[in-house]
Amino acid sequence: MRLYNVHTLKEAQEVMERHFQFETERVHLDDAYGRILAETITADIHVPMFRRSTVDGYAVRTFDVSGASETMPILLDIIGSVDMGKFPEHALKENQSMYVPTGGMLPEGADGMVMVEYTELFLDQIGILKPAIIKEHIIDIGDDVMQGERVLEKHQLLSARHIGVLAAIGQFEVLVFKKLKATVISTGDELITTSSLLKRGEVYDINTHTLKHHLKHFDIEVVQTHVLKDVKPLIKKTIEHALECSDIVLISGGSSVGEKDYTADIIDELSKEEGVLIHGLAIKPGKPTIVGKVQNKLVLGLPGHPVSALIVMDQMMRMYLNAMIEMKPHEVRGTLTMNVHAAPGKETFVMVKVIDQKIYPIQGKSSMITMMSQADGYIRIGENQEGLNKDDQVIVYLLD
Amino acid sequence: MRLYNVHTLKEAQEVMERHFQFETERVHLDDAYGRILAETITADIHVPMFRRSTVDGYAVRTFDVSGASETMPILLDIIGSVDMGKFPEHALKENQSMYVPTGGMLPEGADGMVMVEYTELFLDQIGILKPAIIKEHIIDIGDDVMQGERVLEKHQLLSARHIGVLAAIGQFEVLVFKKLKATVISTGDELITTSSLLKRGEVYDINTHTLKHHLKHFDIEVVQTHVLKDVKPLIKKTIEHALECSDIVLISGGSSVGEKDYTADIIDELSKEEGVLIHGLAIKPGKPTIVGKVQNKLVLGLPGHPVSALIVMDQMMRMYLNAMIEMKPHEVRGTLTMNVHAAPGKETFVMVKVIDQKIYPIQGKSSMITMMSQADGYIRIGENQEGLNKDDQVIVYLLD
Repeated sequence: MRLYNVHTLKEAQEVMERHFQFETERVHLDDAYGRILAETITADIHVPMFRRSTVDGYAVRTFDVSGASETMPILLDIIGSVDMGKFPEHALKENQSMYVPTGGMLPEGADGMVMVEYTELFLDQIGILKPAIIKEHIIDIGDDVMQGERVLEKHQLLSARHIGVLAAIGQFEVLVFKKLKATVISTGDELITTSSLLKRGEVYDINTHTLKHHLKHFDIEVVQTHVLKDVKPLIKKTIEHALECSDIVLISGGSSVGEKDYTADIIDELSKEEGVLIHGLAIKPGKPTIVGKVQNKLVLGLPGHPVSALIVMDQMMRMYLNAMIEMKPHEVRGTLTMNVHAAPGKETFVMVKVIDQKIYPIQGKSSMITMMSQADGYIRIGENQEGLNKDDQVIVYLLD
Repeated sequence: MRLYNVHTLKEAQEVMERHFQFETERVHLDDAYGRILAETITADIHVPMFRRSTVDGYAVRTFDVSGASETMPILLDIIGSVDMGKFPEHALKENQSMYVPTGGMLPEGADGMVMVEYTELFLDQIGILKPAIIKEHIIDIGDDVMQGERVLEKHQLLSARHIGVLAAIGQFEVLVFKKLKATVISTGDELITTSSLLKRGEVYDINTHTLKHHLKHFDIEVVQTHVLKDVKPLIKKTIEHALECSDIVLISGGSSVGEKDYTADIIDELSKEEGVLIHGLAIKPGKPTIVGKVQNKLVLGLPGHPVSALIVMDQMMRMYLNAMIEMKPHEVRGTLTMNVHAAPGKETFVMVKVIDQKIYPIQGKSSMITMMSQADGYIRIGENQEGLNKDDQVIVYLLD
């Protein structure tokens, strides 16, 4: 029989950082949404590359129209109009103007724009009804991005907005971290997967469902799921196959130190050099947690209980992915609405609901599965704290 | 030339609600992640369906062991052990006990569990070292979910946690709203899509990138994207084709009332009964917005400017989807860190950054594309407000 070799979460974080690295690849912008930058992006071009008008109107030399008013319009010759996307055919000389649409390029010589609302046509001349201010209604070269400017930092999770900026600077390929693949295995003689009726003593498997879908929250692709009886050779063979096509293997159930708990032994048998790195975490729920390494891949043993499995998996994945991305977007802060007690000597996790920055701990036995559907996330209570008080400010780890 | 027919956002919401409905479909639980429930779910079974132990230990009749202590253990006969997933072979009679693992089913007759830590083996009998409390360490039938109980409400966005609960009650199929499909079209003579070098006057297209990826934020599948020159027959033909395979067509650029703004005319030509429902919104940025309906599908004309297009699209999609789901998860509250001025008579949108519930308005011309990469979302200032003050509590619409 094995014994626990209990670690704190802080130690677990260090183990994760020491043991796991991430590969990178170059992808087209179309495939970059939701990916994490593995390089810092600097602009190769100015944005815009030319002086653009922000209004529909007439490009002018501001000096020419400095005395213009509604009662005394200044008349300018119209020497043409600028087409969108085209280079203006002429430069402005004294007392000349040119029509420029919103987004169009200003001709050489122009240093101001007069909105069409402040102009009036007089035969083939344009009457300017008020003075133009230098650079007003104009975006200058590089106003938005200067060539050589740092635009996005390494480790940035790329959203629609970031991809828009990459498109603006013509960066159509970026270096990102490779997308991770995972296998989820749920073990237990009592687990039933089909929609057939349950016999007494049996329960429907929950963990492949919750773990599989929660991995999507971390943008990890699930390539296989398995629900297995507690049969060691079967579990071992399944893990071996999973390692061929996965970067991460999650196994719920069998992570404790009982008779039918095979995960730790299997991990050690599959990797002589590394194997089990951690067996047992000083957290509640989640003591029976295993962090293992086989062929440079993460093998995670999780408690069988669905709520515990989900919370522990969430914390472990945050730690594992921490070297790739800061997990900030999955957190919010709020104020506790009541006192919460904790298990001394252990980090304690408590499921909570968040409404308007107020945090409501969810009551009920930790064994209850319906807690999951009510909770927006969970809070962490430090190992040296006896609990938290009403009105304390705390961080909530969001569970999507 | 067309004229604007300006509506408020409130009116736009009413138009959306009156004109658009959503279809539903039945899907397997494996495909239910991220979908929106179109039915209320009630449990067909009790969870658990049997009395389960929450510890490894011995099932007892509490009456038998009421006087037990470490110095005076009470000895019980062991009549067997319960296997996980199996129905216990015997019922407990007086002074009998049975081993039950965590999650195992309690035998008939038992009303308490004694943790293995508080027992000692004496030959073929078990010594009980402390009294058992009725129902302690036991989850009773229906403790988690009662048969007939409402488990999830209609309009719930299904996350990993909800799918876990559905699995627990054996609900392997659910009625959800059909996944929506969209086409994104960006129009403008100045737009370049390839990674070739820009000529002066040209810019890279941004809107197909930002709009396409932001639709993923709303779980909408993008089936086509197009970048088109401002040529009316070309744009019309593309919209017609898009309507064959999309529920939503977004067109950026061409939504104003100028010479080359064709979107409104095309929508009216394609649908004699409905066509353009709204042309012009009293918002800033975003006045040139079109809400149209063709073949019961949403055709949305958006401003050409990338920041405006993104904000308007986000607001319009929230309104459109409002009948399917409450958009709460995409909002946070916080405190403004400085005064913000607004355009009177219009709703004003201002891009902001959110750090620890503090809201920092992003400075800079609204024409700047890099604002997008810095912003976490935007705030709304009502049409009758002159602005917002430092320390005001406001809602931020998150842009993923």
